[in-house]
Amino acid sequence: MKKLRYIALTLCLLISGCITSQKDTAFQTSTIDALLAGVYDGEMSCRQLLKQGSFGIGTFNHLDGEMIVLDNNLYQIKSDGNIYKPALSIKTPFATVCQFKADNTAIIEPGSSFEDVEAVLDKTFPNQNLFYAIKITGQFESIRSRSVPAQKKPYPPLKEVTKNQPEFNMKNISGTIVGFRCPVYVKGINVPGYHLHFISDDKNKGGHVLSLKVKKVNCEVDILNRYSLLLPKDAKEFAETDLSKDRSKELKVVEKR
Amino acid sequence: MKKLRYIALTLCLLISGCITSQKDTAFQTSTIDALLAGVYDGEMSCRQLLKQGSFGIGTFNHLDGEMIVLDNNLYQIKSDGNIYKPALSIKTPFATVCQFKADNTAIIEPGSSFEDVEAVLDKTFPNQNLFYAIKITGQFESIRSRSVPAQKKPYPPLKEVTKNQPEFNMKNISGTIVGFRCPVYVKGINVPGYHLHFISDDKNKGGHVLSLKVKKVNCEVDILNRYSLLLPKDAKEFAETDLSKDRSKELKVVEKR
Repeated sequence: MKKLRYIALTLCLLISGCITSQKDTAFQTSTIDALLAGVYDGEMSCRQLLKQGSFGIGTFNHLDGEMIVLDNNLYQIKSDGNIYKPALSIKTPFATVCQFKADNTAIIEPGSSFEDVEAVLDKTFPNQNLFYAIKITGQFESIRSRSVPAQKKPYPPLKEVTKNQPEFNMKNISGTIVGFRCPVYVKGINVPGYHLHFISDDKNKGGHVLSLKVKKVNCEVDILNRYSLLLPKDAKEFAETDLSKDRSKELKVVEKR
Repeated sequence: MKKLRYIALTLCLLISGCITSQKDTAFQTSTIDALLAGVYDGEMSCRQLLKQGSFGIGTFNHLDGEMIVLDNNLYQIKSDGNIYKPALSIKTPFATVCQFKADNTAIIEPGSSFEDVEAVLDKTFPNQNLFYAIKITGQFESIRSRSVPAQKKPYPPLKEVTKNQPEFNMKNISGTIVGFRCPVYVKGINVPGYHLHFISDDKNKGGHVLSLKVKKVNCEVDILNRYSLLLPKDAKEFAETDLSKDRSKELKVVEKR
């Protein structure tokens, strides 16, 4: 009887592990080009998203701010500059998460810019054909970030929204950068290269990182060789969006504006 | 006691389901552009592949023929025109599989060509942004197929190999077409549009379908809204291949030569 109870418990633990997600997997809902085209309403709740990963970035339905998932906590950096902890029933039109477990570290020198960080990571992780989750923790001399304001239907494309995006200039701030480096062949699906969000230690400031200057940080990297995409099955807007168009120029403008 | 046994059994069934694969998932190993570039040796065994799906297409290490997976059976259509049942320990550099479960059917008229089949499926399944597994069973007036011969290192790119590909002309033949329609945004990762392989009912003939004429067939379709990619983590060849190049012209030549 005791033995059977033990078996049942083990099986339960196994199930909860494999129902949630696999290790070394970048899980993503919808596609970046659908977001660029103005598909701002997704089918997936953040509760479902957090089952796929405890670490990641994205946005919320109606494009209501920047998402950051850190240590299984969900944060919403709204365009008013404040950070909220939304209900897990809130849905997302685009997000990427993983179960972060550091495989390796990179040494980032004080004074490094965003471009310096990219260069160091490129050198430390030369395999350009895998996915990388990136976690940079510590003190920053400065971080410039942005958020996006919630939109009303009919939704404008993302490049129109980001024309008037609120930006936030933070000085001498401690916090964590959460993000991914994706291979170039996911063009149209996710953001090729680096896509980073920031949240301060006091959980008061953050956003989509536009530029930065490092003071003193630790950088951990999780190498991901699995990529899992969940597409909206029934959403009319997603179904009817022309995803054959090359939107890479739009993406560049939107990411680094 | 009986109740606990029942719970343990249920849990076992649940586990076996979620360890193997999720429904409505197109599972893929490596990328089409790596294959185009000559990365013909993968890390995944066909035993592992069949855990992800009982239905699908691909190729084998050294590019040794066309793969078809049907009803959980693995077939290898070699360039000599014969079909083999390889050991499950054999590895694959590129394959796509799913657990096929028909969601819907399409009506394909006698006399239809490959292009007619594409047009009917496009009309029946207008959402171009999801994945579709396609199973066409019945009699064909004709099928023209090809296979690819096993290669020796240093591997030439796929477009060089298919220049001298053996082709097979089948007349009045019964069998099954197995394949996928992928959305255009997987360019570089899988084959956008239709990619079909054929195997005869007597398991004696088959290959990568180049053209066809339908006599009388049933067509079933499984709509897939999940896409799962497993990338070679440690393979030097995959890591060092430039996957930033646009190989869509090469792909067109290779697919329809």
